Amino acid sequence: MKTLKISNNVIRRMPRYLRKLDELSAAGVERISSSELGRQLGLTPSQIRQDFSCFGEFGQQGYGYYLPSLRDAIASILGMDRGYKVIVMGVGNIGRALLDHFSFEEYGFHLLAAFDPDKRVIGSQTKRGIPVYDSAIVNEFCAENDVDIAVLCVPSQYAQIAADAAVRAGVKGIWNFTNAIIELPEDSRIVKEDIYFSDSLLALEYYLATRQDEEARRTARLEKMDRT
Amino acid sequence: MKTLKISNNVIRRMPRYLRKLDELSAAGVERISSSELGRQLGLTPSQIRQDFSCFGEFGQQGYGYYLPSLRDAIASILGMDRGYKVIVMGVGNIGRALLDHFSFEEYGFHLLAAFDPDKRVIGSQTKRGIPVYDSAIVNEFCAENDVDIAVLCVPSQYAQIAADAAVRAGVKGIWNFTNAIIELPEDSRIVKEDIYFSDSLLALEYYLATRQDEEARRTARLEKMDRT
Repeated sequence: MKTLKISNNVIRRMPRYLRKLDELSAAGVERISSSELGRQLGLTPSQIRQDFSCFGEFGQQGYGYYLPSLRDAIASILGMDRGYKVIVMGVGNIGRALLDHFSFEEYGFHLLAAFDPDKRVIGSQTKRGIPVYDSAIVNEFCAENDVDIAVLCVPSQYAQIAADAAVRAGVKGIWNFTNAIIELPEDSRIVKEDIYFSDSLLALEYYLATRQDEEARRTARLEKMDRT
Repeated sequence: MKTLKISNNVIRRMPRYLRKLDELSAAGVERISSSELGRQLGLTPSQIRQDFSCFGEFGQQGYGYYLPSLRDAIASILGMDRGYKVIVMGVGNIGRALLDHFSFEEYGFHLLAAFDPDKRVIGSQTKRGIPVYDSAIVNEFCAENDVDIAVLCVPSQYAQIAADAAVRAGVKGIWNFTNAIIELPEDSRIVKEDIYFSDSLLALEYYLATRQDEEARRTARLEKMDRT
């Protein structure tokens, strides 16, 4: 795979492309032009052509993109063929939601196990047959099974403790679902992704407030026109 | 409030500022310079000054930012003082996680009720006392209570149905936790925010794969040097 420095913005758009391509494939579409893809995604065709060109040549002038090849290329760029191994730390509501419903396999991951300190769930299996072990053994489990990614689903107040344990256990990536700010050792090369629900809700709130203000101004203008 | 066209990137950084300011306030900090704030957030001081200047003047040359005023200003910009009313649709694992643990109030929202079609939960209350009603009455509930935002936590296959119901019920915003692509009526001015877990995990996967490739190249270089 040719390696290019790819901007974060392009990387962030890739999963969206993937989701759209899967939707199109499921609908029986085999080829699509950059203009049609752009229309469906709310992006300009040139934006799409530019994004895809970062990874090599997929399209053929006048023929559009062949979906299976494009999909394979995006999947490979994203690392979906690496078979990274995942554990879930914390079997509360969020942990359970991921364990029961999230398709780790669809994105190329192997979900190996879940960990929790609660005796009532230790030794059980999730709906999809994932074993739940005692958090106390996470270190040896990771060492034995060469775990790549720990998904943090513990209560916020235990987030740093769980992260520290994951780091000691040698994971290479942390997927953080707690609302906490996780500190990693400065010299670590651990990759971290945070899902802060509040960031998304605050953005929604801002856009709602903006819309409300616009409507209030429009109403005020109309009333002023009525009076004059 | 002065209205300026603010870029999406700035908006997306605001919740991060808010989180950091709250962390600093909790630690007893009252004032902070843009350079220190930048250091802690991994942003340049000029980036921070530029972002904040979109909303007016908060800092005083040489004195830094006074945290309480800055926090209030950001909260007001984000619309946290609007008191938007929220319902949760779907009381599965994700719905339950939000109902039991997410601090809607902290961000200025009023969480009114949850809805589910399952008779076993209809009529119950969540841990924090939020009533769970029959999905069948979501329409009249929204009309009576002037609900602003519906949080979609239903299984993916019901996502569009739930979204359509929310739109008919007159909500102004949709916070989508399903993995589904939600279509809204073209003429609607409804604001939508999607939390696609997979987008975040795929980004993590990409950064891990990139790191792995870099390390493999470094190892190969070192081996080559050893041989020569």
